[in-house]
Amino acid sequence: MLGRFPRGGQRAWNVRHRAIENTLGRTIVFPSLSKRVAILGSTGSIGRSALEVIEHLGRPYRIAALSAHTQVAMLMEQARRYRPAAVALTGHPPDMDLRDELRSVGTDVYFGPEGLAEIASRQDVDIVLVAVVGAASLPAVLSAVAAGKRLALASKEALVVAGCLLVPEARRRHAEILPVDSEHSAVFQASQAGRRAEISRLILTGSGGPFLRATAAQMEDATVADALKHPTWRMGSKITIDSATMFNKALEIIEACWLFDMPPERIDVVIHPESIVHSMVEFVDGSVLAQMAPPDMRTPIQYALTYPERLPGLGRRLDLASLAALHFEQPDPRRFPALRLAYEVARVRGTAGAVLNAANEAAVAAFTQGRISFPRIAALVEETLAAHNVVPDPSLETLLEADRWAREKVGALMNRSCRSMSST
Amino acid sequence: MLGRFPRGGQRAWNVRHRAIENTLGRTIVFPSLSKRVAILGSTGSIGRSALEVIEHLGRPYRIAALSAHTQVAMLMEQARRYRPAAVALTGHPPDMDLRDELRSVGTDVYFGPEGLAEIASRQDVDIVLVAVVGAASLPAVLSAVAAGKRLALASKEALVVAGCLLVPEARRRHAEILPVDSEHSAVFQASQAGRRAEISRLILTGSGGPFLRATAAQMEDATVADALKHPTWRMGSKITIDSATMFNKALEIIEACWLFDMPPERIDVVIHPESIVHSMVEFVDGSVLAQMAPPDMRTPIQYALTYPERLPGLGRRLDLASLAALHFEQPDPRRFPALRLAYEVARVRGTAGAVLNAANEAAVAAFTQGRISFPRIAALVEETLAAHNVVPDPSLETLLEADRWAREKVGALMNRSCRSMSST
Repeated sequence: MLGRFPRGGQRAWNVRHRAIENTLGRTIVFPSLSKRVAILGSTGSIGRSALEVIEHLGRPYRIAALSAHTQVAMLMEQARRYRPAAVALTGHPPDMDLRDELRSVGTDVYFGPEGLAEIASRQDVDIVLVAVVGAASLPAVLSAVAAGKRLALASKEALVVAGCLLVPEARRRHAEILPVDSEHSAVFQASQAGRRAEISRLILTGSGGPFLRATAAQMEDATVADALKHPTWRMGSKITIDSATMFNKALEIIEACWLFDMPPERIDVVIHPESIVHSMVEFVDGSVLAQMAPPDMRTPIQYALTYPERLPGLGRRLDLASLAALHFEQPDPRRFPALRLAYEVARVRGTAGAVLNAANEAAVAAFTQGRISFPRIAALVEETLAAHNVVPDPSLETLLEADRWAREKVGALMNRSCRSMSST
Repeated sequence: MLGRFPRGGQRAWNVRHRAIENTLGRTIVFPSLSKRVAILGSTGSIGRSALEVIEHLGRPYRIAALSAHTQVAMLMEQARRYRPAAVALTGHPPDMDLRDELRSVGTDVYFGPEGLAEIASRQDVDIVLVAVVGAASLPAVLSAVAAGKRLALASKEALVVAGCLLVPEARRRHAEILPVDSEHSAVFQASQAGRRAEISRLILTGSGGPFLRATAAQMEDATVADALKHPTWRMGSKITIDSATMFNKALEIIEACWLFDMPPERIDVVIHPESIVHSMVEFVDGSVLAQMAPPDMRTPIQYALTYPERLPGLGRRLDLASLAALHFEQPDPRRFPALRLAYEVARVRGTAGAVLNAANEAAVAAFTQGRISFPRIAALVEETLAAHNVVPDPSLETLLEADRWAREKVGALMNRSCRSMSST
């Protein structure tokens, strides 16, 4: 359904179609009514919110599978509480004691990235919520799409890196890709007020991050602690630093192009420090539809699970009068070069997204380790992109190769500047 | 379709259904593709904007009929330019010269309120845009609904006075009632992002009018000229004074109850001086969908004509960054008693809406003539409502009788206070 904004008619047809398929099948439970959710990355912030949402929703929503990278103890606790049919541990060596312990409560255990891809395509999973940070989710995402699952996508990297593979595959397999990101969920919700062809512009909002009012000099001297002070959202450290550089918004521009089949020149970014208007859609008639809510990831998570339905939510209600004012301003392209890079990458496509994403991950890691200054993050990404020869229609292997190349390139650029610094 | 928020499925069915009806009929033009518009009140501000919109839209949109009350010269000019099949002059005695002149360019001419009702139900009219101020439009509105036309409703009074007749009749006749008012159009647009049963609250915005920051003492001394200074919208004088008293918002609360089948306790009003967010819908999951646009009546007029489609519009684009801030605050119930009266009337229904509307019209007229102070408008409406015995399921005759009674009551209350003033 990706980028096609299904409305009543299409949906009604889908529901009927699935029901027919099922009366011919071996089970009398209609899959369209069965909502078994696999949460990839259940120990992170989004994953834990998703568990809360599913527990709140109750039947037919059920936790079918969970995964964690290294937080084994928390995953074990979650498994004991929610009794999923399967769990995967991606950053843990195979452990027979652990496997036996979980098997005794009826849970299959998988290890490594292959394990993650396996739980994403299990027959007893209907919806795969991808909340794994970075490009590590890619094989599992492809596996879920190939199995025709509904993908609830919380990690931007899958589409930024591999949109050129995922989007055509999702169309072939009739797999829905629904956004969980608050901005893309807002666009998806607002777009329901019209048809795909009637959309003239997407307007992504961004809080502006901790450096919205910082001078270039202040940004030059910014510490990791400064960059981690997000004004409105509490998130992981990588995404919070992305918010400070606006690479977060850059990834969102590229993701929106893939998700909504929209050329980059029809995507605008507006700074909105209160994070109440999560994004907007402008239609050809001049009407702008905006989705608003207090900042709470449980709202977009729930919509990606329940769409096309809306069910009572967990978040507090919006009280506009108590907010008094909502502010909007243009982002400063000089202090936030990430946005310009995003438009270029979205225009070029191919391996460019993988390079931007990997170079940014490597540069953020270097900044977090205190090896480079804050503005150097964007500079390194730009230099890496400039050195890259874009491959127009890449395979998964080519994309992963571009990812590896970009990380090495960032390392080489850092070493070179260290050498040039020490030689001066 | 009123209050049911049809989406793709229902709509697709309607289009197909009408096409089938038509292939059995005598014409090969599908009515669902034919958009012949009657504009009741074409010489007013909304009417002239509607002419502009239809001219801009081009085929299949066509001006089929026009009407004016007293502005004969302008109506004649419009008739010569747009060559409608019919015109009605409601405030003009039958005039044979005029009739002959228009007949010579192929236009049928009607006179009086009966004439207005006749053009509203003509076979060569598909959509009736009602832009006649006050309850005068009522017979024509009922006639259009009885003929199963799409009603594009710009005058709030029809539903406020006769919602209890119009809404059931529209359901029986499968007549759509679509709002043209910017607030109700916004609600209607935002409601497309979910289903009827998923709506938890409607949030109507209001500019607050010219007296938003006035003290009670300033309002006591307000002149007609003060009340006519609307901050954002340029409208007729009756509606501008209604905006100053917030009776405009009061009528909108009552209208929204009928239009969206919503109990009054689920309708909130929030003051938003910039008039950019035209209104909002809150869904059960906590998401609030808002419709925004620069203040321009051509946008909601066009949506009521083209719905469920959106076509390129005439208004300028929204530039949020240049607006800098949108403000929201609670209305002051003490200085604006109209809102409290609206909730009471919407709860009671029956003849209460007719009485509120007529008492307000009479009181505004008295204020405009300099006979009463500004705060006395709301006081007179409240006293008239207090003296009224509500009839629960009124006929049209009973509603018109309640309207007459309320106007007389306002006169009597004014005379009494004049007498009591002169006796003191």
